[in-house]
Amino acid sequence: MKKGNMMNRIHLSLIITLALLTIINLGCKENKNESTLEENKSIAYKGQLAPAEFFTGKAWVTGLVDNDSVFTTAAGSVFFEAGARSNWHSHPSGQISIVTEGVGYHQIKGEPIQIIQAGDVVKCPPNKVHWHGASKDSSMSHIYIVPNTENGIVNWMGPVTDEEYKSL
Amino acid sequence: MKKGNMMNRIHLSLIITLALLTIINLGCKENKNESTLEENKSIAYKGQLAPAEFFTGKAWVTGLVDNDSVFTTAAGSVFFEAGARSNWHSHPSGQISIVTEGVGYHQIKGEPIQIIQAGDVVKCPPNKVHWHGASKDSSMSHIYIVPNTENGIVNWMGPVTDEEYKSL
Repeated sequence: MKKGNMMNRIHLSLIITLALLTIINLGCKENKNESTLEENKSIAYKGQLAPAEFFTGKAWVTGLVDNDSVFTTAAGSVFFEAGARSNWHSHPSGQISIVTEGVGYHQIKGEPIQIIQAGDVVKCPPNKVHWHGASKDSSMSHIYIVPNTENGIVNWMGPVTDEEYKSL
Repeated sequence: MKKGNMMNRIHLSLIITLALLTIINLGCKENKNESTLEENKSIAYKGQLAPAEFFTGKAWVTGLVDNDSVFTTAAGSVFFEAGARSNWHSHPSGQISIVTEGVGYHQIKGEPIQIIQAGDVVKCPPNKVHWHGASKDSSMSHIYIVPNTENGIVNWMGPVTDEEYKSL
């Protein structure tokens, strides 16, 4: 074999390498795009920034079911950034939470903080003072359901202090 | 350069190619594993096969909130395979559906079939006869909320025929 042929073979080998790397890299990117599409077709609601008056840190709220006299139920989705949480509050007819993403905390006054994660369902009984939010290191989203709104929806109280939040 | 050296270079080039392909391939697999972990930490409930008596095709039901006298609310998640749907039915106090995955259909008797997809919220008023299910080509999951269960939960009727299902 001539030296020129050898060099051609090396070049061909490198070109094939680069071509394969490009194809495989594109393959990886395609997978990522598919995953982004899946995320878009999800219930990862964007929502409105929650009022600083009732939340510590950043949380976004999306109303899903407006209270009315037919269903007497209010529902929505809240996304809490890591570290963000609601103020202490209560609901005259209680509240049901379905955790849809991440890891968070839920605490009824006088009880230990409970760790909650995607798939969990938490019930807070009527008039029990409580708070919920993200964990220190992870965001948390939940769908809240407030039943029997003819009795009222929510009574807001003071913020969850850093000391209370870190008492886990 | 000697012929032996040239051959060594070609071999080296091929070995580097294979090594790179292996590393990149592992990278792709790692991404997939991450995505599987995310799916596990999701609200993609597995559930129990829904009774054939009330469903056409395969659907899986997960109870999330059992009816009780405090919250007077029942809630759960249903996953419908493509083509699967509930029978016609009604709820004495109506029903709220939050679509959590895929594309499906919802129809109130006498009205056109409505296409629903992840993120949508659908309300069916009290005692209105309706059905819901997956679309022909995609699965659909929804969280159902039945409020004011002191009035009853559900009244089941006959199946949605293929003719009715395909009338979109």
